[in-house]
Amino acid sequence: MAITDIATRTWDHGWRLDPIVRSLLDTDFYKLLMLQLIWRHHRSVEATFAVINRTSGVRLADTIDEGELRAQLDHARTLRFTKKELIWLAGNSFYGEARMFAPDFLAWLAGFHLPEYDLSRDGGQYRLHFAGAWCETTMWEIPALSIINELRARAAVRHHGRFALDVLYARAKAKLWAKVERLRALPDLALSDFGTRRRHGFLWQRWCVEALKEGLGDRFRGSSNVLLAMDADLEAIGTNAHELPMVFAALAGDDDAALRRAPYRVLEEWQRLYAGNLLVVLPDTFGTAAFLRDAPAWVADWTGFRPDSLPPVAAGEQLIDWWRAHGRDPRDKLLIFSDGMDVASIEEVYRRFDGRVRISFGWGTNLTNDFRECDPMGAAGLEPISLVAKVVSAGGRPAVKLSDNPAKASGDPAAIQRYRRVFGTEGMRHAATPV
Amino acid sequence: MAITDIATRTWDHGWRLDPIVRSLLDTDFYKLLMLQLIWRHHRSVEATFAVINRTSGVRLADTIDEGELRAQLDHARTLRFTKKELIWLAGNSFYGEARMFAPDFLAWLAGFHLPEYDLSRDGGQYRLHFAGAWCETTMWEIPALSIINELRARAAVRHHGRFALDVLYARAKAKLWAKVERLRALPDLALSDFGTRRRHGFLWQRWCVEALKEGLGDRFRGSSNVLLAMDADLEAIGTNAHELPMVFAALAGDDDAALRRAPYRVLEEWQRLYAGNLLVVLPDTFGTAAFLRDAPAWVADWTGFRPDSLPPVAAGEQLIDWWRAHGRDPRDKLLIFSDGMDVASIEEVYRRFDGRVRISFGWGTNLTNDFRECDPMGAAGLEPISLVAKVVSAGGRPAVKLSDNPAKASGDPAAIQRYRRVFGTEGMRHAATPV
Repeated sequence: MAITDIATRTWDHGWRLDPIVRSLLDTDFYKLLMLQLIWRHHRSVEATFAVINRTSGVRLADTIDEGELRAQLDHARTLRFTKKELIWLAGNSFYGEARMFAPDFLAWLAGFHLPEYDLSRDGGQYRLHFAGAWCETTMWEIPALSIINELRARAAVRHHGRFALDVLYARAKAKLWAKVERLRALPDLALSDFGTRRRHGFLWQRWCVEALKEGLGDRFRGSSNVLLAMDADLEAIGTNAHELPMVFAALAGDDDAALRRAPYRVLEEWQRLYAGNLLVVLPDTFGTAAFLRDAPAWVADWTGFRPDSLPPVAAGEQLIDWWRAHGRDPRDKLLIFSDGMDVASIEEVYRRFDGRVRISFGWGTNLTNDFRECDPMGAAGLEPISLVAKVVSAGGRPAVKLSDNPAKASGDPAAIQRYRRVFGTEGMRHAATPV
Repeated sequence: MAITDIATRTWDHGWRLDPIVRSLLDTDFYKLLMLQLIWRHHRSVEATFAVINRTSGVRLADTIDEGELRAQLDHARTLRFTKKELIWLAGNSFYGEARMFAPDFLAWLAGFHLPEYDLSRDGGQYRLHFAGAWCETTMWEIPALSIINELRARAAVRHHGRFALDVLYARAKAKLWAKVERLRALPDLALSDFGTRRRHGFLWQRWCVEALKEGLGDRFRGSSNVLLAMDADLEAIGTNAHELPMVFAALAGDDDAALRRAPYRVLEEWQRLYAGNLLVVLPDTFGTAAFLRDAPAWVADWTGFRPDSLPPVAAGEQLIDWWRAHGRDPRDKLLIFSDGMDVASIEEVYRRFDGRVRISFGWGTNLTNDFRECDPMGAAGLEPISLVAKVVSAGGRPAVKLSDNPAKASGDPAAIQRYRRVFGTEGMRHAATPV
């Protein structure tokens, strides 16, 4: 017989909520890298982010209780970076670089908290916006996604019995471990956890990360989740995201030439602030073909690319061809694949490119939220959805993403039309949105 | 009904042991401060430490299994400072000072592990010695004491039923909380946890520290335990110990004048390495009266004293008189009381000195190991004992401590006699050894 710890149980009774986000480090590493650039050079820019559910058939507002959602968002706003966390950011090495975060930036972080949010219902969906200074609103992206995804998962299993829950997680664990066993067959694998934004829940992500650490050994390179990287003495992994070219493009105003230059201005600022393994280009914001066509010669000096919306094999071949055309040996270069990868596509990409180019995988949704065929009750709501938090305007102008896959485009329709005219639509192809 | 987590339970089955010391930071902060001085200036000195049970009526070798003791000591030897711990030591501020630990020292710490030990039985006691480089053997003090004290406590409750254990800890918690309520009545109290070395167990110390944090608020100033300070975002508290003057004195060789100067040479080296609130003198190694009589004038510039073997009120009055005689205002000075304090003596000292001198309390054994009248089974073995780990020789010569209380003296009898001749015995008085 187990004795119940009555004090803990009674404390639990009084919980206002079981918090989903418990630390401001429970975010993706690239947010902190981008934040330092934004704070350093664009402190006065206003930018609005919006949560967008691309899986419109899933009516989030019918599933997730608005009061619970507000309570979780409010709780996240109470968080501050703790002393221990700031010391770790200041003292840890990232990608082999010490002091990646400057003392003045860390001093500012010490006072940081998430800004206000604007939540309303819009039919079966929530309308969740974050308006204000870019260097504050940008930090909502990951906690907002974590909160909505985990609240949805909690709602899906709310009426499960204890054994049904036990079997659900038993199956999910067995399923992940089978993937680990397949991945072990790839001797040169380099793989990282990119699964924070679409995770089933924080504790589940932690389980997955620790399973990869035990199961893959050195082939597991780290986690994009800063808190998990700190707690498990793992490398924090990440580079940059679409929001940088999107905001730079919006700030270019009506000048088409400035708009066309915006993606390269991002790279110029980035390489002044960071160096080494952090020089990885995300090429698809306004179409990869346009990006490569107009790229200044020095872009070929960067370490690598992270293709994010074309089918991975096609994207890899296109980028290898481009490096060759620019006189570079692809074996010195790096490709990071992170768009909806799972074991089969990791194996395919690995076999195609191993030895031809350095490759690395960022494994997201299918690592931290694959409960397909695991639920003994067959409940709806455990399948992942394509939920994103995107910048929608900056400096009072609409922010646009074209992507190589028009299903992943976002922004005001008139603005999208103008961007398509400026950048062209070469190489774009419709595909299902990976979640 | 609770579902058992079978994987965790099965993993637990296979445990070789439940480790008592799980981190090299689970030590007192002053060990790290002293270690840096030893490593910086006395790297080649050999020093032997020995565990000494002053409560000789308690036959430790009859209570604690030798195999378990070896397993725990061996486990402690496998520990290394983790990356996160080293980052915290490098990046945290201690007593308001950043970078208290130098980069070359931290680089050396990264490779540190506890050196070999020498364990044998000697009648009803264990003979446990640590011989070798001072900068390695010094680090055994706290883990050796923690391990023996916790193994003894585990042995004492080995045959308790579940409810007896539940009631034991319930009473101990209630007892500590009653002390917290009394201490709350002292508005200017400044109190720290000094209880690592004599604790009932690690988890119990953690409970006590968290209880003080919740119960005393700002009046609780921090913990001498570095791991608990890191994990709870508390101040790490500590200064220096008898081993410094004891080793310096041993190294003085046969030269009586050099022996007499040894305690002040410690202070000279200390103040070159550290400053500010760390300038606290431990005056009683060879008798407080002798120390004050022969002290150079600059000793009165130090921040404070930590009397450690005279009755606290008498010690405080003596030190206040000495400051006055040296033209200092005691209200600018600090007294730290840490010798066997409990609520009644804290109250007495507080009332006596509040407003006349700055006072601070280091609360040890009676904070983290007070189970008197708590055990429903009335088992023997839960009362604390006076267990110490002392330096017994340095540079091939015996190390001696006289103390103001002859019951706390330690060292080779002939050497003690010589030290008494050199320093005198003024002001010494026999008293029971506080545990």
